[in-house]
Amino acid sequence: MSKVYVIKIGGNVIDNPVATQKFLSDFASIKESKILVHGGGKIATQVAEKLGVTTQMIDGRRITDEPMLDVVTMVYGGLVNKKVVAQLQALKCNAIGLMGADAGVILAKKRPVGVIDYGFAGDIEQVNATQLLAFINQDLTPIVAPLTVDAQGQILNTNADTMASAIATALAKAGAEVNLVYCFEKKGVLLNPEDNDSVIADINKEKYAQLKADGIVSKGMIPKLDNAFAALNEGVKEVHIIHADNVHAQSGTKLTL
Amino acid sequence: MSKVYVIKIGGNVIDNPVATQKFLSDFASIKESKILVHGGGKIATQVAEKLGVTTQMIDGRRITDEPMLDVVTMVYGGLVNKKVVAQLQALKCNAIGLMGADAGVILAKKRPVGVIDYGFAGDIEQVNATQLLAFINQDLTPIVAPLTVDAQGQILNTNADTMASAIATALAKAGAEVNLVYCFEKKGVLLNPEDNDSVIADINKEKYAQLKADGIVSKGMIPKLDNAFAALNEGVKEVHIIHADNVHAQSGTKLTL
Repeated sequence: MSKVYVIKIGGNVIDNPVATQKFLSDFASIKESKILVHGGGKIATQVAEKLGVTTQMIDGRRITDEPMLDVVTMVYGGLVNKKVVAQLQALKCNAIGLMGADAGVILAKKRPVGVIDYGFAGDIEQVNATQLLAFINQDLTPIVAPLTVDAQGQILNTNADTMASAIATALAKAGAEVNLVYCFEKKGVLLNPEDNDSVIADINKEKYAQLKADGIVSKGMIPKLDNAFAALNEGVKEVHIIHADNVHAQSGTKLTL
Repeated sequence: MSKVYVIKIGGNVIDNPVATQKFLSDFASIKESKILVHGGGKIATQVAEKLGVTTQMIDGRRITDEPMLDVVTMVYGGLVNKKVVAQLQALKCNAIGLMGADAGVILAKKRPVGVIDYGFAGDIEQVNATQLLAFINQDLTPIVAPLTVDAQGQILNTNADTMASAIATALAKAGAEVNLVYCFEKKGVLLNPEDNDSVIADINKEKYAQLKADGIVSKGMIPKLDNAFAALNEGVKEVHIIHADNVHAQSGTKLTL
């Protein structure tokens, strides 16, 4: 089976039209099969504010009550997803926008209420790799919004990093050679968060444990890296964490087991 | 080639959750291949109002300036489309949400500025019937939002009635036996707009000309009927205008050449 890139682009890049255009142009020029998972949190927060919907975050995760669910459905599924698809089509990339419900690609379950009630947050139960690979084999490029659905048709807000990792894992299990790439506004995992050039080139499991113990890897980065190592554990071939400007060079942080 | 239903559901139905659920349940149970085109104007107007974006309509058509384009992209492409897809998936209908840019299904051109400047309004140039039929042949049910894209990746607001007619025509030209159905909140074309039971069962071209001349067919209905007759002229087999509750019975107005 051929190579598939699963690329995640963060909300801080998507919020910037110039950075987005540069990224999408690079993305479109990737010759191999590819899937894009996008965020959009920053735009969701802006639209929520204009609508008078309060944004509540706990440890970097959004609390999704009913009004916020409508906001993220509009922003992730509509505004961001459709603009990205439209831009990619103009770049001759045959993009198709999807959220979990579309063609039944991702089924989730509402997160049980624990110490924190995340509201309409979805934990992924199943990725339909067969359907995603069918799209890819038709030369379509799936552009996935971070929204899922449960079996009763309830839309759920889902973390885009987790979504990218789950998609990558499912494709790997289906036999694809998968390269998972997290693109964001920094050059990689940084030794010193204040110094954008202090990129750690390679991190394996032991080094990751050490970096966490030393407090070098910070709050926001931990779920991203946990997702990345989970994907490697389950058969994803390579994981890179890079600046959105560097899709081709992939010069950021490379993760290995 | 097998039968394909192209069904359009209006914004006044989509705005009502109970009516929508009933309609989608009936839609999901249609055994033949089908495509749904939806509106969402009423919800767009509500969201626009909350965002402080002014809605401007001329002869029932929305003027789409830049802020309004974001609103309709969010509402049609996100909120409405994704909720419909999610509900249909729960009803075991393998729905896939699309706007014109997705998989390049519909290409449009920004409407030239004439007496009226409609802003980012799209006139359909090309429907990719091959791609739509490919989805149908994979047992996917396209759910189409009334948004298109031009060759430069500019998203454009497009009338849902026109979209349904253009899709039906393109599928007919590709050899499918197409049944175009306009579902809305009335029982059909009415002889007396005040009397919901005064449905005109059959209208052919001559009768249509007479109804227009007599002023019985009113403003909002004229573009719908013009679209319908255009579709029949170009090979669509049947056109029905019915109440959204009546998808199975199709007991409203039947149009013939």
